Amino acid sequence: MYPGSFDPITNGHLDLIARASRLVDRLIVAILRNEAKAPLFSVEERMRMLEAVLHPYPNVEIATFEGLTVGYAAERGANVILRGIRAVSDYEYELQMALMNRRLRPEIETVFLMAGEAYSYISSRLVKEVARHGGDVSGLVPEQVCERLRWKLAGPA
Amino acid sequence: MYPGSFDPITNGHLDLIARASRLVDRLIVAILRNEAKAPLFSVEERMRMLEAVLHPYPNVEIATFEGLTVGYAAERGANVILRGIRAVSDYEYELQMALMNRRLRPEIETVFLMAGEAYSYISSRLVKEVARHGGDVSGLVPEQVCERLRWKLAGPA
Amino acid sequence: MYPGSFDPITNGHLDLIARASRLVDRLIVAILRNEAKAPLFSVEERMRMLEAVLHPYPNVEIATFEGLTVGYAAERGANVILRGIRAVSDYEYELQMALMNRRLRPEIETVFLMAGEAYSYISSRLVKEVARHGGDVSGLVPEQVCERLRWKLAGPA
Amino acid sequence: MYPGSFDPITNGHLDLIARASRLVDRLIVAILRNEAKAPLFSVEERMRMLEAVLHPYPNVEIATFEGLTVGYAAERGANVILRGIRAVSDYEYELQMALMNRRLRPEIETVFLMAGEAYSYISSRLVKEVARHGGDVSGLVPEQVCERLRWKLAGPA
Amino acid sequence: MYPGSFDPITNGHLDLIARASRLVDRLIVAILRNEAKAPLFSVEERMRMLEAVLHPYPNVEIATFEGLTVGYAAERGANVILRGIRAVSDYEYELQMALMNRRLRPEIETVFLMAGEAYSYISSRLVKEVARHGGDVSGLVPEQVCERLRWKLAGPA
Amino acid sequence: MYPGSFDPITNGHLDLIARASRLVDRLIVAILRNEAKAPLFSVEERMRMLEAVLHPYPNVEIATFEGLTVGYAAERGANVILRGIRAVSDYEYELQMALMNRRLRPEIETVFLMAGEAYSYISSRLVKEVARHGGDVSGLVPEQVCERLRWKLAGPA
Repeated sequence: MYPGSFDPITNGHLDLIARASRLVDRLIVAILRNEAKAPLFSVEERMRMLEAVLHPYPNVEIATFEGLTVGYAAERGANVILRGIRAVSDYEYELQMALMNRRLRPEIETVFLMAGEAYSYISSRLVKEVARHGGDVSGLVPEQVCERLRWKLAGPA
Repeated sequence: MYPGSFDPITNGHLDLIARASRLVDRLIVAILRNEAKAPLFSVEERMRMLEAVLHPYPNVEIATFEGLTVGYAAERGANVILRGIRAVSDYEYELQMALMNRRLRPEIETVFLMAGEAYSYISSRLVKEVARHGGDVSGLVPEQVCERLRWKLAGPA
Repeated sequence: MYPGSFDPITNGHLDLIARASRLVDRLIVAILRNEAKAPLFSVEERMRMLEAVLHPYPNVEIATFEGLTVGYAAERGANVILRGIRAVSDYEYELQMALMNRRLRPEIETVFLMAGEAYSYISSRLVKEVARHGGDVSGLVPEQVCERLRWKLAGPA
Repeated sequence: MYPGSFDPITNGHLDLIARASRLVDRLIVAILRNEAKAPLFSVEERMRMLEAVLHPYPNVEIATFEGLTVGYAAERGANVILRGIRAVSDYEYELQMALMNRRLRPEIETVFLMAGEAYSYISSRLVKEVARHGGDVSGLVPEQVCERLRWKLAGPA
Repeated sequence: MYPGSFDPITNGHLDLIARASRLVDRLIVAILRNEAKAPLFSVEERMRMLEAVLHPYPNVEIATFEGLTVGYAAERGANVILRGIRAVSDYEYELQMALMNRRLRPEIETVFLMAGEAYSYISSRLVKEVARHGGDVSGLVPEQVCERLRWKLAGPA
Repeated sequence: MYPGSFDPITNGHLDLIARASRLVDRLIVAILRNEAKAPLFSVEERMRMLEAVLHPYPNVEIATFEGLTVGYAAERGANVILRGIRAVSDYEYELQMALMNRRLRPEIETVFLMAGEAYSYISSRLVKEVARHGGDVSGLVPEQVCERLRWKLAGPA
């Protein structure tokens, strides 16, 4: 299971999903429903973008969840939580979360994959900031997301 | 003096207080009154929890303060500010604060103790997040806090 | 070009500007207009403080901008974006921004200068926090800023 | 494939092998033959210790190799290189190696697992240093290794 | 001045020199004569490789030096020492060196440029290690260096 | 107890000893006898330099030891091991050592003090490197050490 906000999915996420889908039998890409974070895209919009981008991967399923990540992983019978790592600051937070998750559900393992170096500086947050100021984000997010971002940020919201 | 938010006290804090109380003659555990941070527990609730947990330590006193940490330390005649360190990101912020505090009050020394490795992933923030989603936090916080957390999060707020 | 919030300018910023002004022909100190960050000082106040402090540097110009830093740099014909580095956490964010900026405008180079060790713990945020609680910030910010801070924080806002 | 020096195997390595053996069909624990590093135990001794410790894991095979890790992984048909991560400094070196390995053999993925927090401070190097000065290393290395260490360090070499 | 061992020059160094040569009037690439480090290539060989690779850059000069970097910089009238930064561990050592150099020669500024993300994992040490084990290093070092490495490592030494 | 190599003592060490001597009743500055590290100064020379520099501190005692630090601390009845922290890389190694020491002797606490920011870049290693190349190290080490360094490096060894 690969949990995240995917608000929106970036080419860094996509690279990780492509790598991971070759290593595991079945991969659940799980969108966290967290309205407190004031996402740019609704869960439904994020889901539609993931569907558009991930349909070439037959063993990848898209889902949404609320609450604790390990709780949902256990519910779905996932034995691995997949996380991407980039910078050192990411990594510390990820380790802390992984240790907590191990304490809550010792039978679920957190496994880290490395984002490609070409994606090391891409985050959903930075992509949104660049797009908001009219910067070109093609190459940073999948083409379908690129259009949606333009449309979203030109709109009344 | 060991300043903090203690919202709520965790087993990591408790481990540190137990270690420190053996090293110094007298230890003031000082709760920062900082309403801007929207705490889960009121200062009074945090104080009652600290009292319940810390009464086995005769040389530990509980207090609350507002404003600058070094200001309150000077007021109380404390010559050491105690801080726990865990991860690298903590550590950088702690060093920056300690250098600033040294500049403001050169006569007060900041001293760092290391949290036990079993507590390295426990923070008040993470504990609250787990409890909020119905995860089990026994073993992460003292028993008395455990009950209060359950009661608080089940309540109307 | 040296972009930043300068809310307010600190002695760390000033040290960097002094160093940089000796290395380049012309330096634009560019204040980012970002109302979303709820600054303490208005852009106009920040500009007046920069003018008061920077008039001894004949090759330093003060400006304000909105939107992407590299966009404004390109508009002004700047070929270098200057950034100061202090702690490791700064540095990671700075590298990520610099890689993104390079992608958006490959012809503009980000160059890092090191703040003096005496300024390693000074940030605008920490200075405001100390001043807000009545701590003495002389020596951390230029004298003119010191007065403004006192006046601002004593006022109705 | 889990490559390493294993000079000697510690309880941290063992924890990782136990976790990993549940995630993969088959795990090769591969000892790097690197005489330049002046190991304490010969490759043959390290192999015998690994055999003694790992025989409860039916899907774990022990091997030795020389040269590039990815070269040996490719030769053995392994599609994953497993690495444990602990501290930040480890992590940076590991990421650099993983990016290099990806460049040399893009079809082999490096996957990171987290050592248990109880093992975060155990390294082969530190264990040897403690043992060399007569410190007690039981609990840090498997029992069989404990005896061998004592015997080795009491010997003429 | 850009000081280093250049044993051998990598594409990461070359990327940095290309970027820096556009920012400054004149750039001295200075090879440190440090026999204590047991280099693979002699200073003369390193110099010939640098000459072969750097002749397209008319404002770049190649030199060798012994002793303190800032001492040589002062001797040559350089007012800037250029350093590339990649990982966090690099960065700490570089900051420490830069602070020491500032203390020894306050008039010389250390300026950091960021290596391209495609070069973030390339170091002379890693390149030599890969080449030594027969790995392909084309794309990691300039073509001329590639040949020399192959020839050197096939030789009697 | 403050253990170290002190090869030689720097102003950073001295600053730490001065701070610590005000916090504790009695401080043992303990020189590690470690011939494997090929020190510049013999243990006897280091001891004489420490004596010359530390005689103004009546509650500071100088000693030498071999073997495990916690072993010697226990032997001397010290209940605290004092360590200085500067950079992040230091810090990680120090934490690892401190956790190991806690495991070996749970009754001895490792306590970290922060070096003054003016000393953040001074290490014995760097001081020796600068002195070796004829750089001026006054202000980095106590005056008495300065002379010894000059004499030592001018000598036949």
